[in-house]
This record gives sequence, C-alpha cells and structure tokens, in this order.
Amino acid sequence: VARPRIEQAQQHLDSLTKPPGSLGRLEEVAARIAAMHPEGKPQIRKRGVFLFAADHGVVVEQVSAYPQEVTAQMVLNFLQGGAAINVLARHAGAEVTVIDMGVNHNFDRQLPLLHKKITKGTGNLRRGPAMTREQAEAALTVGVELATQAQRDGIDLIGTGDMGIGNTTASAAILSVLSGHAPEAITGHGTGIDAATRRHKVAVIEDALRLHQLDPTDPIDVLAKVGGFEIAGIAGLILGAAAQALPVVIDGVVSIAAATVAYQLKPDVVDYLFASHNSTEPACRAGFQILGQEPLLDLQMRLGEGTGAILAMNLIEAAVKIYSEMATFDTAGVSRKQLP
Amino acid sequence: VARPRIEQAQQHLDSLTKPPGSLGRLEEVAARIAAMHPEGKPQIRKRGVFLFAADHGVVVEQVSAYPQEVTAQMVLNFLQGGAAINVLARHAGAEVTVIDMGVNHNFDRQLPLLHKKITKGTGNLRRGPAMTREQAEAALTVGVELATQAQRDGIDLIGTGDMGIGNTTASAAILSVLSGHAPEAITGHGTGIDAATRRHKVAVIEDALRLHQLDPTDPIDVLAKVGGFEIAGIAGLILGAAAQALPVVIDGVVSIAAATVAYQLKPDVVDYLFASHNSTEPACRAGFQILGQEPLLDLQMRLGEGTGAILAMNLIEAAVKIYSEMATFDTAGVSRKQLP
Repeated sequence: VARPRIEQAQQHLDSLTKPPGSLGRLEEVAARIAAMHPEGKPQIRKRGVFLFAADHGVVVEQVSAYPQEVTAQMVLNFLQGGAAINVLARHAGAEVTVIDMGVNHNFDRQLPLLHKKITKGTGNLRRGPAMTREQAEAALTVGVELATQAQRDGIDLIGTGDMGIGNTTASAAILSVLSGHAPEAITGHGTGIDAATRRHKVAVIEDALRLHQLDPTDPIDVLAKVGGFEIAGIAGLILGAAAQALPVVIDGVVSIAAATVAYQLKPDVVDYLFASHNSTEPACRAGFQILGQEPLLDLQMRLGEGTGAILAMNLIEAAVKIYSEMATFDTAGVSRKQLP
Repeated sequence: VARPRIEQAQQHLDSLTKPPGSLGRLEEVAARIAAMHPEGKPQIRKRGVFLFAADHGVVVEQVSAYPQEVTAQMVLNFLQGGAAINVLARHAGAEVTVIDMGVNHNFDRQLPLLHKKITKGTGNLRRGPAMTREQAEAALTVGVELATQAQRDGIDLIGTGDMGIGNTTASAAILSVLSGHAPEAITGHGTGIDAATRRHKVAVIEDALRLHQLDPTDPIDVLAKVGGFEIAGIAGLILGAAAQALPVVIDGVVSIAAATVAYQLKPDVVDYLFASHNSTEPACRAGFQILGQEPLLDLQMRLGEGTGAILAMNLIEAAVKIYSEMATFDTAGVSRKQLP
C-alpha cells in the first residue's frame, strides 16, 4: 500500500464534517483500506472468517486445561452454529469457513467442512519436530489457496480464527523464537490453567527451544519444529491475502504467531493486516511489536476461534462507511475551524 | 440490578461452550443486561441514539476552534444524514433522534427535530450562571420524558450523544467540581485547539469556578451555573432510563459529565450505564472514576454526537447474543475442563 495513497485518503477524511483526526483510529483504518481501493470508494460487501482447526502432539505434556477431543467436538459445534464465533459471525453478517488442517478425528466427508487434513495432529514439540518441512509447506499452501479462492468469491474483508487444544503452547514457542523474549515472559494461561500448570507449560517450551535450537531467520523451520497445522494455514492465508491486496483482520495469540511467521517470510504483508484485539495472552504484545501494529480492541478476551477478529471487523466496516458516506464541509455548508 | 441476578447470569455464561471468563468484558456486559431481563432471555430489538444539541454563552471567550454557527449547521447535517453519527447509526441499525435543547438558531418547525429549546444558548459561565435553576430542571425533565417515551416505543438500548460548540468547556467545569480535580488536570483540546488556547480555556474554567463557588453535593446547582442544556437533557435521559430499567450507553466527555450529574442525584443509575469509550479528553477518566466504570473502547476518538456510544452498542448487542444464542457444553456434547 503506497504511502501517498494513504495521505490522499487522509485528505479526503479531513474534508468530512468533523474536526480533523477526531475519529481517531477509525480514520487510520479507513485511510489504509481506502488506499487499497485506488479505483474508487472503498466498500466492504462480503466478510469471511476462516477458522483453521488442528491438534497438537504437545498435549501429552498436560499443558492444556481441556482434553484433546475438544478440538473435534468444537469443530462439530462450529458446524452446528452453536459456538461463540457462529453467534458473532451471524451478528456481523459474515460467513465462517471451517478448515480441518489436522484434527485427530475422522470427520464424516459429508460435513460442510474443508477437508485439508495434513495428518492427525502434530508431533510433540518437546520431544521432536511438530511436523516436517514438507508438511509445513503443504499447510501454508492450503492457506494461500484459500485466499485466492476468497478473492474469486468476492470476499473483501478476511478474518482469521483458530481451534486446537494445545495451540497457545505452540504460539508462545514461535513468538518466543521470533521476538527473542524468554518463554517465561510470554507464556500465558491459555484456556485457563492455574499458576503451577503455567510454570510447567513454560518448562515444556523451554525444553523445546533447547532441543530444536531454532533460527528466527528460517521461519518455515520454526513453524515446522514448534508450530501447528492451523498456525501454518493462517500464515498461508495471510500471505495469500496480501498477494491479492485483501485486508486481513487477525485474531488473538495463535493468529498473531501465524502473522509473525508470514511477516518474516514477506514483510510487506503488514500493509494488509489489522490487529483486532489484545488478548490476555502476554505473547500478543511481543507479536504486535514485531508487526508494528496496535490492536483495535482490548476486551480481555482469550477464546480464539476468530472472536476478536469478527468484533474488530465491525469497526473496520464502520470506518470504511465513514470514509464513503459522510458529507463534506462544502456539501453540508458547515463552517470550518477558525482558531488554531 | 440485584447482585444475585448478575451471578445467576454468570452461571449461565459459564455453561456455554467456551472456557469460563474467556469472553472477558463481553461476559460482564452480558451478565448485567441479562440481570435486567429476569423474565427471560435478553434481547436487543431496537436501538435509539438521542442527540441533544445546544449552544454555550462561553464561546465569546474564544474557547473553541469552531464558530458557534456550527452547532446549528451540524443539526441540519444530522437531519440530512451526512454526519458521522448518521453513518454509524445506519451501520448499526439504530434510530437517531435529534433534540434542540437550546441552539442559537430558529429552526423551521417542519424539520424532523424535537423542538425543546429552553432558550437560545446558555449564559457565559465565566461571567455569570449558564442558566437558572428552573431552566436546568426544565432541561432535565425533557430528558426524563424522552426516556419514558423510548420505553413506550420499545427501545431496549439507548445511546447518548451531544452537539454544542463550547460544550467541552462546560463538561470540564462540571467534572472538575464533581471530581475535585483541578481544571488544569482535566481540560482537553476539545475540537482541536492548540496548547495556548487550551491554557486560556483552563483559565476561563478557573475563573468560573472561582466566581460560582460550587457545592458538589448540589449537582443541579452545578449544572445550572456551569453546565449546558444538552448536558442537562442527557442527565435527565439517564435518570429516566434507569427508572425504566433501560440500559444506557454513554458517549464521551459531555455525556460523562451528564452521567456524573445524574449519579450525584441518584447513585443507582450506574447499574444501567455502560461507558462506551475513552476519548482523548482527560476529564473522561475523572468521570469514569466517579461512576466506577471502565470504557469498552479506546479508539482515540473525540467527536461526540454519540459516535463512541454507537460503536459500543454493537459490542453490547454481540454480548447479549452470546448469552442467548450459544450452545452449552451439555447440548453440544463438548468435554469440560480436566486440569486446574
């Protein structure tokens, strides 16, 4: 997104009937989206949330409050429309696409689910690589292709979501490597573990980083050794969306880990990213620093699924409508500023 | 709103397919709204924003960046649907009711505007009282009656908004008296004045507080001496809404000043208040402290009109749908927490 286009969009915002800058972050969002639509007025007609699900071998280490079967159970809940993301997506008028990237369950092929299973869950990152490099690349490709399809389907605002018991462990590991912060500083309570289990989770991540000796300049290797199939899928979606000039709203810590992987592979993806919310997971802040982004919301949420992304999509849509629908000082006959 | 009802609502939230508490502030909002609907599932069917407009005598002191005529010009802009609040209300599916509480302009009686003008603007608070006690009470009554009408019209979520050149000066004066913070600490840049004009605005408020020697335990006197007709209208709306058990989403500093006046008159109004956003005006924080509220949004907005309130209304509606529409662990067949 070219800087002069953003400045041009800001000039239009300054001609609207409000004190310049008085809509704060909405103006920043509107200017960036407008700059992606140089041919005319920006518009959000179709919103899509892509919810990537996968299982994690590290759950044998007892790092999550919930048993692994919950990943598959929640996928079925998504398909029946009973989960938080379904409620919020209906509220927002967005479609939810659920992708099985590697859930440890045989889903009925008839279910309205994208069957992209790489394999039934990653390996235990504490004892070996989570996946092979080929598996990581295959999972990234799934995401890239979904972005291409989204563009063909007329989606003009993408949200990311995740489901996978154990995936805040993988995300903290990735963000620790890519940010340089110690696991102790950025590992959170995930779905709600207590202090003792969190200390154990930190130790598991420390063991993994000692075992794999990861190089932050090889993000695909980081993804393969300590990541997850859903994280790779989201990273691919972000890469693909940026290539299609489609804005992407990223959810909490799992999506942020994916976004930092995508950023390390192709830094200009950040032009198309919008950080939705600051979750209670401390690794989020490390990710925002890498991406140079500030989240729009801080509602102390920590659910995943894309729930933060979908709430922020409403703000982004509001910002775009401000840009396209407000009257100017001239057309409305409103006097301008008289004092400095 | 009775405490046991809120706890009962939280129990329902904990039965839904998400880790307990993982929707953060949405859960807090949902529990409070649910507790207001003891007879069944809460629902938001009709949203209404009440936008109170009035002029301020203090503008002769050159405290605002914009000329006084902008108040009337913006009222016409609201009626034509070109202002930020119109765009955001269309986006949110909310009705906007514009009330002339005391604009210094003769509006055509045919305009779709509630004609409740007390008089054409307040007196200059630096040199004398902004209004008489009778005028303050009349303006409060307008707001109370609008809340009663809103309840009859089936509105179940109210947003407050304001328009009035000079009204951040009146709001800072009120919040200074009611919070005990010095004007220097809580006076902001309003529509965008520079540092020198802000220092002058502080001096104007200091002069007013010296002149009137206000007693914070007589909030109607504070409102009369240094308030505004739109501020009184909003305070009345809040009092009336609480009496009807209707939730009210308050906008930025002008609505917050009104809410603190309402709170001083009747402390239990806070049960029905939702603070929408933290504007860049420093007086907001003083108001939140008095009200014991934390805002849902912080988007560095400072426009007024109800623009922050309408954005937060979407979050509140989302929270209510989470409460009413999500599946439970039992109905969805999802396993519960296994680790502490």
